[in-house]
Amino acid sequence: MAQALQAIVEEIVTAMAAETNRGDVATYIPGLASVSPGHFGMAIVNADGTVVMGGDAELPFSIQSISKVFALTMALGKVGDQLWKRVGREPSGNAFNSIVQLEAEHGIPRNPFINAGAIVVADINLAGHMPRESIGELIRFIRFLADDETIVVEEAIARGEAETGFRNIALANYMRAFGNIHHPVELALGVYFHQCAIAMSCLQLARAGRYLMLDGQHPDGGNVVSARRARRINALMLTCGHYDASGDFAFRIGMPGKSGVGGGILAVVPGKASICVWSPGLNASGNSELGTLALERLAEATGWSVFRARG
Amino acid sequence: MAQALQAIVEEIVTAMAAETNRGDVATYIPGLASVSPGHFGMAIVNADGTVVMGGDAELPFSIQSISKVFALTMALGKVGDQLWKRVGREPSGNAFNSIVQLEAEHGIPRNPFINAGAIVVADINLAGHMPRESIGELIRFIRFLADDETIVVEEAIARGEAETGFRNIALANYMRAFGNIHHPVELALGVYFHQCAIAMSCLQLARAGRYLMLDGQHPDGGNVVSARRARRINALMLTCGHYDASGDFAFRIGMPGKSGVGGGILAVVPGKASICVWSPGLNASGNSELGTLALERLAEATGWSVFRARG
Amino acid sequence: MAQALQAIVEEIVTAMAAETNRGDVATYIPGLASVSPGHFGMAIVNADGTVVMGGDAELPFSIQSISKVFALTMALGKVGDQLWKRVGREPSGNAFNSIVQLEAEHGIPRNPFINAGAIVVADINLAGHMPRESIGELIRFIRFLADDETIVVEEAIARGEAETGFRNIALANYMRAFGNIHHPVELALGVYFHQCAIAMSCLQLARAGRYLMLDGQHPDGGNVVSARRARRINALMLTCGHYDASGDFAFRIGMPGKSGVGGGILAVVPGKASICVWSPGLNASGNSELGTLALERLAEATGWSVFRARG
Amino acid sequence: MAQALQAIVEEIVTAMAAETNRGDVATYIPGLASVSPGHFGMAIVNADGTVVMGGDAELPFSIQSISKVFALTMALGKVGDQLWKRVGREPSGNAFNSIVQLEAEHGIPRNPFINAGAIVVADINLAGHMPRESIGELIRFIRFLADDETIVVEEAIARGEAETGFRNIALANYMRAFGNIHHPVELALGVYFHQCAIAMSCLQLARAGRYLMLDGQHPDGGNVVSARRARRINALMLTCGHYDASGDFAFRIGMPGKSGVGGGILAVVPGKASICVWSPGLNASGNSELGTLALERLAEATGWSVFRARG
Repeated sequence: MAQALQAIVEEIVTAMAAETNRGDVATYIPGLASVSPGHFGMAIVNADGTVVMGGDAELPFSIQSISKVFALTMALGKVGDQLWKRVGREPSGNAFNSIVQLEAEHGIPRNPFINAGAIVVADINLAGHMPRESIGELIRFIRFLADDETIVVEEAIARGEAETGFRNIALANYMRAFGNIHHPVELALGVYFHQCAIAMSCLQLARAGRYLMLDGQHPDGGNVVSARRARRINALMLTCGHYDASGDFAFRIGMPGKSGVGGGILAVVPGKASICVWSPGLNASGNSELGTLALERLAEATGWSVFRARG
Repeated sequence: MAQALQAIVEEIVTAMAAETNRGDVATYIPGLASVSPGHFGMAIVNADGTVVMGGDAELPFSIQSISKVFALTMALGKVGDQLWKRVGREPSGNAFNSIVQLEAEHGIPRNPFINAGAIVVADINLAGHMPRESIGELIRFIRFLADDETIVVEEAIARGEAETGFRNIALANYMRAFGNIHHPVELALGVYFHQCAIAMSCLQLARAGRYLMLDGQHPDGGNVVSARRARRINALMLTCGHYDASGDFAFRIGMPGKSGVGGGILAVVPGKASICVWSPGLNASGNSELGTLALERLAEATGWSVFRARG
Repeated sequence: MAQALQAIVEEIVTAMAAETNRGDVATYIPGLASVSPGHFGMAIVNADGTVVMGGDAELPFSIQSISKVFALTMALGKVGDQLWKRVGREPSGNAFNSIVQLEAEHGIPRNPFINAGAIVVADINLAGHMPRESIGELIRFIRFLADDETIVVEEAIARGEAETGFRNIALANYMRAFGNIHHPVELALGVYFHQCAIAMSCLQLARAGRYLMLDGQHPDGGNVVSARRARRINALMLTCGHYDASGDFAFRIGMPGKSGVGGGILAVVPGKASICVWSPGLNASGNSELGTLALERLAEATGWSVFRARG
Repeated sequence: MAQALQAIVEEIVTAMAAETNRGDVATYIPGLASVSPGHFGMAIVNADGTVVMGGDAELPFSIQSISKVFALTMALGKVGDQLWKRVGREPSGNAFNSIVQLEAEHGIPRNPFINAGAIVVADINLAGHMPRESIGELIRFIRFLADDETIVVEEAIARGEAETGFRNIALANYMRAFGNIHHPVELALGVYFHQCAIAMSCLQLARAGRYLMLDGQHPDGGNVVSARRARRINALMLTCGHYDASGDFAFRIGMPGKSGVGGGILAVVPGKASICVWSPGLNASGNSELGTLALERLAEATGWSVFRARG
């Protein structure tokens, strides 16, 4: 099986290298704009712990919104289901982005995977901490999930986010006006901008996502979260993980997943695999062009899908 | 297993009988308003064909929007992926209902499970037919899926829909203004109102849904749809099957499902079960109050969820 | 004065004849699409009853939405300020058209000069009548205002409106769903489509608008409406008369006015003049391109504006 | 005439003192919340320079959004019609406030009298200045208009605005994300918060508004703005001066006007009067409850209205 999978991954890596329509690299901060669109990497950790990878699978990139999965997991550990009083769990579902809904829905963001929701989650994680401590706690949590002490924040990226993040500053202030940000907005945003600036490779991310394929268990033993919570995070990734293309991703690929504007996608096949692909060029919905395509091919070749009877 | 499941179902039926918060029965047409909120039924068809059921599982009720699943399946058989030029596949995702999005998105409904999308699907199914023939074709298709020749349309319900369906008439005309309804609106709506008025029991619906748990196969042999199409319909049910509570349903229950305003919910566990619950009282999102609760208990008791590693 | 005004009008007529950017003629019904964009007409009735006109001032055209002014005046005569329970009096104010607001505002259209509002007004005028009688009553009212018994409905235009008016049918059904249309929608729409199809010349319209410059009085004596009601209709024309370009029209021209998709604009300078211009080509906001320009020049040349100290 | 007007004003002052439904005083900053709802003042400067006033007409209050009229006038003096590339001139026109429209309309606020528009105007006025200089320039301009050197900013109010103005900070950052704020947002907001905190009495405001009734002239001689610009500012006040109640204000009162959350309303009758009323309690639309009522009575008693033939 691992051997067959290695062949599939190699075929995908070769095919992706030949693709000319690679999408557009995010340009809003220099640290992202300077990444070559030629990169492609893929790493798969199977349920038995074996690893299959190809391409630039060990090159770190900016995980950006993929961090929202780990930050949510940490925040649920802190406040439990109280979190859902401040954040919804429905797809945002339209091309108008979320500030419209914040107005109509009184400062409660639709879900924890849109920016507004992730800023509330950062505000929750900040409770009782200084921003530096809060981001440190998240980094340590991710290192524990990935079994890798080398994971760090890229300070230049965090600075770039802060300098250009006017829309996020607007979202945070808007929610503060409704009382849904409890700390000074610059502190909550400080945490948020830093978590987006964490650098990880496909391999590190696929390892960090293992608890989501294992009903919440850490492969080294013990529970990261309960089985129920793992299922629920997977559900949120499936319905909300790709902004307004979440439905299309579920339709085409059928795996819980979370994309980031750095070009990474973390995808989970419960009981089977934790997967990460990376290619920096983005499609019109802001998700990795080749990453999405590669996952679609992987799903076709392996039959992996949560919507399938046999696989 | 079937025995354990029987015990679970019985326990749920008993618990639901004792529930006092049963939601509100739809009142917009007499044929729905007159149904007693005391009903509760549940039927499960396992992958091996065995059936477990309880309560009013054999009492027919108005399937309403559950018909959208079968109508979509039939339309995809007729026009294939061309259908997606006229209907999207993203959650509608906000409390403002779909006419707002129709305007912003130029008459293309968000997905085939909101009313606007289902009216376009009815318009597709109508091609080359008279309305009577089109609805006949759908009835025959559902009878084939359920192996049951007794399934019929309740004409009084269809008439009631037509007499009170001003919002649906508005949606159809609005889409016609954008050229996305090809037949006279009264014909497309005639088909739509009749398909909503089909009466089926939990048992009949659970049987009709078997192809969705079996990768597209009819239990009697042969493919209803390809495995890929079955996965995709499941994906749409998961992301869009419960209007603006689809995210919550995925979060709490984790099964592809489709609700109807008659109080029924069809749910699918690929490879394991096709399930139908029915209780006429609706929650604030327009989905069966007890039906949702019963499925949540069933999921807890069985471990059934597409987001789970083992189950 | 009348002599100076005649010179101004002639200059404008000459200038408009030379304009090459004439906008686009409405094409949604044959009766409008076949009108030559070369037409331009202007008629001014002064407070003393003298008339100045130029170009195609005596050629009838389809008055379309200008009819909303007269229909509103008639409805206010029937039900008085009760009308404002069913229609608002605020500018609709955004590029999304009114169906969005109908949803958010529960079927109450923003003002009587958007289509939804005018359909409610038609529904009010219909009370106790057959559609034929109601439209007959409106025609007689307009003939009385204009002192001209030759004004008629163009039946081919009315038929064209009915055959292509899917958006209006949608609006009417949508409001019916909220209970804000009291008659069968086809009757209310029948009245509406016919009032839009009334044909009048600039001269006839300028004469029909005299009561609005004369504090509600008919020049032949007697009140058409009270002085207060005349002021209020003028206010509505100023804030709402040009759809989402009403602010711009007030800014550039400073007169209460109402445009129609046939290319006519009725404008009022209280105490001074009732004006009608006509040129069939429309700008991006759906108002007459040359009509707007001609009124702007007239305002510059005469100093007429409600926002001016001396004039 | 001035004598008759004095009687009218006295009657209104007496009537307003007896009103029990006085609206709700703004409470979002202490400096506003502490103002007694019992205040009522009115001042009228006639075209001949005579003054009629009553009640608390000489008591300073926080002018808040009335400052937008003077800031706009100053900005138009600096950049002329270039300003309209960055701000629209249409009523915002719906109950959803402006951030929704900023998203749909790419950071261009609908008009200069909603908060977003006024922040852009503040950003324009800031060009080449430090915030302190810019606000100083505006104060000097208003002192010149009112012929009164005692007008100042209340620093405690400005500080309160800054501390609670999360929604305005959100608006500014949101527009900055679209490139429509050119200075650091805290500088533009600093100017904006200070201009809102200017304190003036009814008498001072009515004097400051004289140029708008005099076709742009300062009563002491010379033009403040051209006659055309004065007309246009009046037009904007009429269509946009009372947020989403602008249509209703035009309908009931028929004068260009601008309200502020401090309870003041500046109203203009071109050629006749510059008026200011003040009462701190606000109605549901955020405009002075008694101020609106008092202007309605004044309009009835005097016949003043831009929509009237004789007056």
